[in-house]
Amino acid sequence: MQLANIQWSQTEQDIAQVALATAYQRESTALLQEVRDRTQAIANLEELWALHDFLSARRHEIEGKYVFEPISLIFVFAQLVQEGWLQLADLTGLDPDKQTKIVALTRM
Amino acid sequence: MQLANIQWSQTEQDIAQVALATAYQRESTALLQEVRDRTQAIANLEELWALHDFLSARRHEIEGKYVFEPISLIFVFAQLVQEGWLQLADLTGLDPDKQTKIVALTRM
Repeated sequence: MQLANIQWSQTEQDIAQVALATAYQRESTALLQEVRDRTQAIANLEELWALHDFLSARRHEIEGKYVFEPISLIFVFAQLVQEGWLQLADLTGLDPDKQTKIVALTRM
Repeated sequence: MQLANIQWSQTEQDIAQVALATAYQRESTALLQEVRDRTQAIANLEELWALHDFLSARRHEIEGKYVFEPISLIFVFAQLVQEGWLQLADLTGLDPDKQTKIVALTRM
């Protein structure tokens, strides 16, 4: 699969920005709810430090994932679809070849 | 103030262990409640990462503070009294000279 040098029109970049923001909002909402639920059940500092470790990992992953860089967008969208934060319908309007590549990556 | 080479009898070490455990329990309970309260009010990931930073700092501080080492106990007890996690009554039974040193340090 040829992934280097993929060009994104301005319209596609706009669609991609909206899709990324949508996924970010969905994942944020779910994470905040998960943290609220977990926090209520914490009974001691050992469990609190486990939550701290969880947040360290999630922060590292999310801060790395939601960066708008055309060169990595195909991979990021495939990951977000796999994780359930995006549906293919959120990517409507992108060049069909890009959508095909994204779907192919989600199956790997 | 002479703080090096302070000797702790076995009875004093037992009292110190109990006092340290008492302070740890009090501070843990307060921290868990604070985290529960803060978590309920978090509205976005920026605020969640601020909580993560807060936990990083508290974890570092608490893990360093609650270590049973006779050489640093006078300082640790002075700190715990200053922070409100111990009262002087929790240190009853320690050599009066140690109690005097702890009180003096809390006033520095």
